[in-house]
Amino acid sequence: MNMVGENEEIKIPQSELPRVVVVGGGFGGLRFLKKLDSSKFQVVLLDRYNYHTFQPLLYQVATAGLEPDSIAGPLRKSFQNRKNFYFRMATVNRIDEKNQKVETNIGTLKYDRLVLACGSLTNFFGNDEFEHKSFPLKQVPHALNLRSQILQNFEKAVLMTDENEMQRLMNYVIVGGGPTGVEVAGALGELKQHVLPKDFPELNLNKMQIYLVEGQERLLGAMSEYSGKRAFDYLKKFDVNIYVGKIVKAFDGEIVTLNDGMQIPTETLVWAAGVKGNAISGLTLDITPDKRFKVDEYNRVADFENIYAIGDVASMANKEYPKGHPMLAPVAIQQGELLAKNLNGMKKGKPWEAFSYTDKGTMATVGRNKAVTELLGKFKFGGFLAWLTWMFVHLILIVEFRNKIVIFGNWLWNYFTYDRGTRLIIRPFVKAKAKKKEKPKEDKEVLVA
Amino acid sequence: MNMVGENEEIKIPQSELPRVVVVGGGFGGLRFLKKLDSSKFQVVLLDRYNYHTFQPLLYQVATAGLEPDSIAGPLRKSFQNRKNFYFRMATVNRIDEKNQKVETNIGTLKYDRLVLACGSLTNFFGNDEFEHKSFPLKQVPHALNLRSQILQNFEKAVLMTDENEMQRLMNYVIVGGGPTGVEVAGALGELKQHVLPKDFPELNLNKMQIYLVEGQERLLGAMSEYSGKRAFDYLKKFDVNIYVGKIVKAFDGEIVTLNDGMQIPTETLVWAAGVKGNAISGLTLDITPDKRFKVDEYNRVADFENIYAIGDVASMANKEYPKGHPMLAPVAIQQGELLAKNLNGMKKGKPWEAFSYTDKGTMATVGRNKAVTELLGKFKFGGFLAWLTWMFVHLILIVEFRNKIVIFGNWLWNYFTYDRGTRLIIRPFVKAKAKKKEKPKEDKEVLVA
Repeated sequence: MNMVGENEEIKIPQSELPRVVVVGGGFGGLRFLKKLDSSKFQVVLLDRYNYHTFQPLLYQVATAGLEPDSIAGPLRKSFQNRKNFYFRMATVNRIDEKNQKVETNIGTLKYDRLVLACGSLTNFFGNDEFEHKSFPLKQVPHALNLRSQILQNFEKAVLMTDENEMQRLMNYVIVGGGPTGVEVAGALGELKQHVLPKDFPELNLNKMQIYLVEGQERLLGAMSEYSGKRAFDYLKKFDVNIYVGKIVKAFDGEIVTLNDGMQIPTETLVWAAGVKGNAISGLTLDITPDKRFKVDEYNRVADFENIYAIGDVASMANKEYPKGHPMLAPVAIQQGELLAKNLNGMKKGKPWEAFSYTDKGTMATVGRNKAVTELLGKFKFGGFLAWLTWMFVHLILIVEFRNKIVIFGNWLWNYFTYDRGTRLIIRPFVKAKAKKKEKPKEDKEVLVA
Repeated sequence: MNMVGENEEIKIPQSELPRVVVVGGGFGGLRFLKKLDSSKFQVVLLDRYNYHTFQPLLYQVATAGLEPDSIAGPLRKSFQNRKNFYFRMATVNRIDEKNQKVETNIGTLKYDRLVLACGSLTNFFGNDEFEHKSFPLKQVPHALNLRSQILQNFEKAVLMTDENEMQRLMNYVIVGGGPTGVEVAGALGELKQHVLPKDFPELNLNKMQIYLVEGQERLLGAMSEYSGKRAFDYLKKFDVNIYVGKIVKAFDGEIVTLNDGMQIPTETLVWAAGVKGNAISGLTLDITPDKRFKVDEYNRVADFENIYAIGDVASMANKEYPKGHPMLAPVAIQQGELLAKNLNGMKKGKPWEAFSYTDKGTMATVGRNKAVTELLGKFKFGGFLAWLTWMFVHLILIVEFRNKIVIFGNWLWNYFTYDRGTRLIIRPFVKAKAKKKEKPKEDKEVLVA
C-alpha cells in the first residue's frame, strides 16, 4: 500500500503555529491537551490505540462487570471540533532529538515541542516466565483475555474427572497487594459468592480458591495501615487467602512457587506486582532504573528546553518524593494541567510555575459496600461511605459523558441483581503452551489432552 | 490436562430421565428448551460459544453502535435454576446414529433424543477467495472484525498521500441485497453522514462510497416490491450506489470485479449474499444441496424417530414452501416451540401436531426513522412507524432483560446524539495477505508498504 514509509514524514497540514507532539492519550496526555490553548499550537496526538483507557476500572472488565466501551473513550471523539488538532494511531519507536523528530511505525514526525505521556508498562522484573505465562492488567485486551480465561476455566472444570485438575482450574493467584491486586481479588470473591454458583450448580464453588500474594508485610502499602487492615478484613470475608511478606518465585504455567517453597497449582496467575515507565529509547539522557525519564520541576526532560515528560513515564524527584512521584492518575493529571498552563503563558513571557503535587487522597475497593478511602491525608474511612465515594470519584474522573452513563447503568444493574452481565467468551484465550518437563523414557504413561 | 479425551464420554450426572441433547443455543434451540418440560427430560445443551447471539443486530455491533454484551446472552444465565439441565461448550464433529452418540471436541455424548438446532453458516458458494478475503456477519467475532476494519481503514486513509489508495480505503462493497446487506449499507450511510465527518475532519467524507450489489433485479427479494422500492429510496438518501441484477465475480483483496466487468477498488467486501445450513456430518441420510437436514412435518430427520432438526438447519418442504421454509428466526422459534410441545405430550400419548408456519411479517431497517415493515402479509408500511415497529419487535425478541435495557439505552443515546459510542479498535483486524500478482521483471517500481 502506498502509505508513507517508516522513514517518510507523516502527512500533517502545514501550519504557522509551533507543533506540539503528544505521545500517549492517557490521563496526563488528555488533561494536557484539554488545557492547552488550541489557538497557539498545532497539536499531533499519537497513541497506539484509538481510545483512552480508564485503567482504574480494567479489573471490572476482566471480571465480567463491564464491557470495554464502558471504560474506553474514542480519542477522536474527545477532540471533535478542536482546531489545529490531529490524531494518528501509531507506536513510537525512537526519538531523534537532534533532528527534532519522532520515529513511528507509520513514519516520522517533526516536533517543535514534544510531550512524552506514554505511561507505564507492567513490570515483570525481567522474568520471561511471568511475562509469557501470567495475566497483566494494563490494557483493554489484557482485561478481555483474563475475562475469557476465567470463564474458560470454569467451562473446563465441569468436564474434569480428576479432582486435582478441577482444583487447579478453580485456583487463582494474584501477585501484588496494591489497589489492582486487592480489587481483582475482591471482584473474584464476588464472582465466587454471587455469580458463579448460579451459573455452575454442578461445581462446588467453595472449592474456588483465591490467593493474594504480597511481598511487603501488609496490603495497600501506599496507603495507611488502617486501610491496609480494613482491606485485609474485607478480603477475608470473601475467603481470600492472603499471604503477605511472600514472593512469587516461579510459574511454569501450571504451578506457582513462592519463596518459602509453597506451591499452588493454578492455570491463572494475575500479575499486579508492579509497573515501570514506558520510556522510549533514543534520548541520550538519564532514565531511572524503572524506565522513567528524569524531569525537572517543570516536567522538562533534563537538558532539553522542548521535551517534556508527564505522568507515569516522568520521574520528578524532590525532597518529598526522593524517588519521584507515585505513578498515579492524579499526578499525571496535575502535571498535564500545569505543563499546558506553562506553555500557554510562554508568549506573554509568564514565568514558569514549578510543579507541586496535591495529594487529594487514594482509595481502593474490594466489593459491594466495601472500600477504603483516604482524603487529604486526614480522613480515613471504610465501608459503605468509602464505597460510595469511590464510585462517585470514578464516575467524575471518567472521560466521556457516555462512559459515565454506561458505567453507572452497569453498576446499578450489578448492584441490585448481584449479576455480572458480560460473562462472554468472545475471543477464547489461547495460552502459549507451557514447555512440558522432559519425561524419563521409561515413563510410558500417556496423558490424554 | 486430564480432561476426558475426544473418545471418552462427557461427564454428565446419571439420570432416570431420557436425555435430550440439543446442539445449538440459537433462536430455535433456546425456545425449544424454554418450552420443554424440565421434569420429564434431562437436557444437555451444546454450543461452541457460551452465549446466545442475537444475529439480527450483529450489523449494529459491526458499525460501532452496540457492544457485544448488548446482543449476546450468556447461555448459563438463561437456564439458571433449571433442573436437569447441563450446558457444555463444545463443537460437534459427527453424529454416530448407530450408537446414539454425538462426537465433539471435548468427548462423546449419548442421547436418547437429539435436537439439531445448529443454524446456518455464511455461504460463499465454494469460492475460497470470498471466504478468506471478505467479511461475513454471522457471529460476534465477525462483527468485531468488521468494526475494527472500518475504523482502521479511516485511520489509514488520513495517512495516505496517494488519492487512489485513499479512495480504496473509503470504498465499501456489500454483496447481497437482503435485510443484512440493506442494514449494513444503511448503517454505513449513517456513519458517513453523522459520525465520521466529526471524527475525521481532515477527510472529505463525500468521497466515502458505499456499494450494494444484488444479483436479483431488486432489493429485499423476500419482501414485497413495495418494501424493496422503499428500501432502495432510503439507501439512495445515503448516496448508496445500488447495483441490482449484478453479481460479484471476484475479489483479490484489493479489487472487486462484477460480472459485467466493472471494477471497484476496496479493502472491505462485506459478504451478505447467502447462508447455508450447518448440517453436521455423520447421518446417513438426505441433506439438501444447501446443507440442511430434510425433515418431515414433525421436524423429524427422515428415517429417525429420535433425531430432530429445527430452524435454519432443517428443510421442511411442503406445498407452500417446496424448497423448505425460509431461514428466519420466527421459523426456528415456532419449530422449537412445537417440538417441545410434542415431546412434552408423548408420555400421555398425545398425538403429534404437524408444523405450520405463521408468517407474522418481516422487516428491515435502513437508518433512523427509515425502515420497512410487512405484517401478516397485509400491512406494508415504511418510515418512522415501521422503524418504531422494528425497534419494538427487536426489543421484545431479544433474550435477556439486561440485553433489552442495554440496547434501549444505546439506541436512545445514538438517536439523540447522532453518535456511535463504541468506535473502538480493541483487537486490530489483520487481514490475511492478498497474493500480489507477479510483476513483470522490468518493472522495478518499489511499493512502499
